[in-house]
Amino acid sequence: MALTVVGSVAFDSITTPFGTRERVLGGSAVHFSLAASYFTQVRLVGVVGDDFGESERAVLEGRGIDTHDLEVVPGGETFFWRGHYDFDLNTAKTLETRLNVFADFQPKLSDLSRSSEALFLANIQPDLQRQVREQCPEATFAALDSMNYWIESARDSLVEAIKLVDAVLLNDAEVRQLTDEANLSRAARRIREWGPSMIVVKQGEYGAALFTEEGFFSLPAYPLESVTDPTGAGDSFAGGFAGFLAAHAGSRLSEDLVRAAMVYGSTMASFNVEEFGTERVARLTPPEIESRFSEFQRITRFEQMDLPQPRS
Amino acid sequence: MALTVVGSVAFDSITTPFGTRERVLGGSAVHFSLAASYFTQVRLVGVVGDDFGESERAVLEGRGIDTHDLEVVPGGETFFWRGHYDFDLNTAKTLETRLNVFADFQPKLSDLSRSSEALFLANIQPDLQRQVREQCPEATFAALDSMNYWIESARDSLVEAIKLVDAVLLNDAEVRQLTDEANLSRAARRIREWGPSMIVVKQGEYGAALFTEEGFFSLPAYPLESVTDPTGAGDSFAGGFAGFLAAHAGSRLSEDLVRAAMVYGSTMASFNVEEFGTERVARLTPPEIESRFSEFQRITRFEQMDLPQPRS
Repeated sequence: MALTVVGSVAFDSITTPFGTRERVLGGSAVHFSLAASYFTQVRLVGVVGDDFGESERAVLEGRGIDTHDLEVVPGGETFFWRGHYDFDLNTAKTLETRLNVFADFQPKLSDLSRSSEALFLANIQPDLQRQVREQCPEATFAALDSMNYWIESARDSLVEAIKLVDAVLLNDAEVRQLTDEANLSRAARRIREWGPSMIVVKQGEYGAALFTEEGFFSLPAYPLESVTDPTGAGDSFAGGFAGFLAAHAGSRLSEDLVRAAMVYGSTMASFNVEEFGTERVARLTPPEIESRFSEFQRITRFEQMDLPQPRS
Repeated sequence: MALTVVGSVAFDSITTPFGTRERVLGGSAVHFSLAASYFTQVRLVGVVGDDFGESERAVLEGRGIDTHDLEVVPGGETFFWRGHYDFDLNTAKTLETRLNVFADFQPKLSDLSRSSEALFLANIQPDLQRQVREQCPEATFAALDSMNYWIESARDSLVEAIKLVDAVLLNDAEVRQLTDEANLSRAARRIREWGPSMIVVKQGEYGAALFTEEGFFSLPAYPLESVTDPTGAGDSFAGGFAGFLAAHAGSRLSEDLVRAAMVYGSTMASFNVEEFGTERVARLTPPEIESRFSEFQRITRFEQMDLPQPRS
């Protein structure tokens, strides 16, 4: 089943305690697409300038990603972001953002992109998310991501977009801000009342939580002794999560399937942070992915053990 | 198998968004003892003033806790703490601390307390922790807790105390501060190199992680829609964790046992926060505890699912 993603394509200049990379391929739709490409056919809708070269396109096409709807604005420049991480690697400090051609992004979907069975609306203006959702009536599974900027500047529009999707992916601060509710369980329940059946709460180094009608599920982040660059980890999570579910779109998305999607999301996020930019995710193999999935079993399983008899 | 705990006994005045309680029973050794009492015989070593009344003692003795080594200083006043939590309930703001008789606490262990098969050194001055450890040579399982204050003011002494125990329980900020290492996996490995075979990292609302020779294990916090008062949650965690292991002291503490101890710790912490002070934990029943343990299975289990065939 094919999966259409709409979002940013960017050049990132990244400095972490482990090095610097200048103008590497990035953007939410790129990280998402690469991760999702291990699960399903991906169609990328985005915009770039004519500084976007053959080598960048080759990374996407090397993973079989359909870039037919990656619009090139002649004379334009691609979205550029420069950021810096300190030793704890938890929060990016933005040093420079040049939206460039992304500032006027109007997603243009071909018939093929409109016909996909699954849809991911990466972090873009919520009205655009809604318009794209409405252009893809055949998508039986749709999900979206957003950020604090849209919660603050376009909350009503974001809520309308959320009503049109099956799954919402946000970090915990965003979930609280969006609902004005400090308790995460209550906050997630409120969002579910708007429509989506799955609320995925990304928690960075602590992992991710899932709220569905069947209840709560939580998964830690994969423990790594070396984290090199967290840029795109949330998008890679979304790619693994939505990519796995897209592969099953059309059938009933059982709780078991959705939980496995969480594990694949966490798997892809854990690879993402091992190297700079898209380097690690772009060259994964299916056995590596399945092996890490199994590792998640190993680090979370425990046996039922009875309460001992007290004062024995 | 009996478990001796050494730590603070206090009166707490607590304000949260859900109410205020004046001078309720608290302190690390109290929260620990109540939680551990559902698993094993507990012997409490601590100090109080003569303002510590029959009703407070009755809470402990009602749970079968041996208070023979709870020293009463005539004319003295019990350790008093006043704190406040904002809506996010994550961090306590201390408004007032009066150490009172706890300032000069010199743990006095009876022969019975020295003979316990298990020992928990709650958060007290590390030299005292070491002295108590050395007085309990028969303890085949010993664990300790500490805090940022001792890491800053008595680090070398704390490291020496850590060398004498099997398990260390700290929160993630403390683990990083103690080792000067931002990466949690590397930080935990460093502490294990000092001696302890188990490093338990308490992560508050995100749950808890375990590092052992066999690897990494992580468990979320139990999702509650109503958290009333987090005071003592870490101590209740420690009580469930060490209480369960104390019940098995003398036999080999297999990875399965230690993971189950993590679940019992998280179970007791989750009950702790449901009401003020010791109210909820003091009146639990074994079926309630076992039922929540099973809930942890439900919120963490997932099935192995194969990677779909891409581009199907």
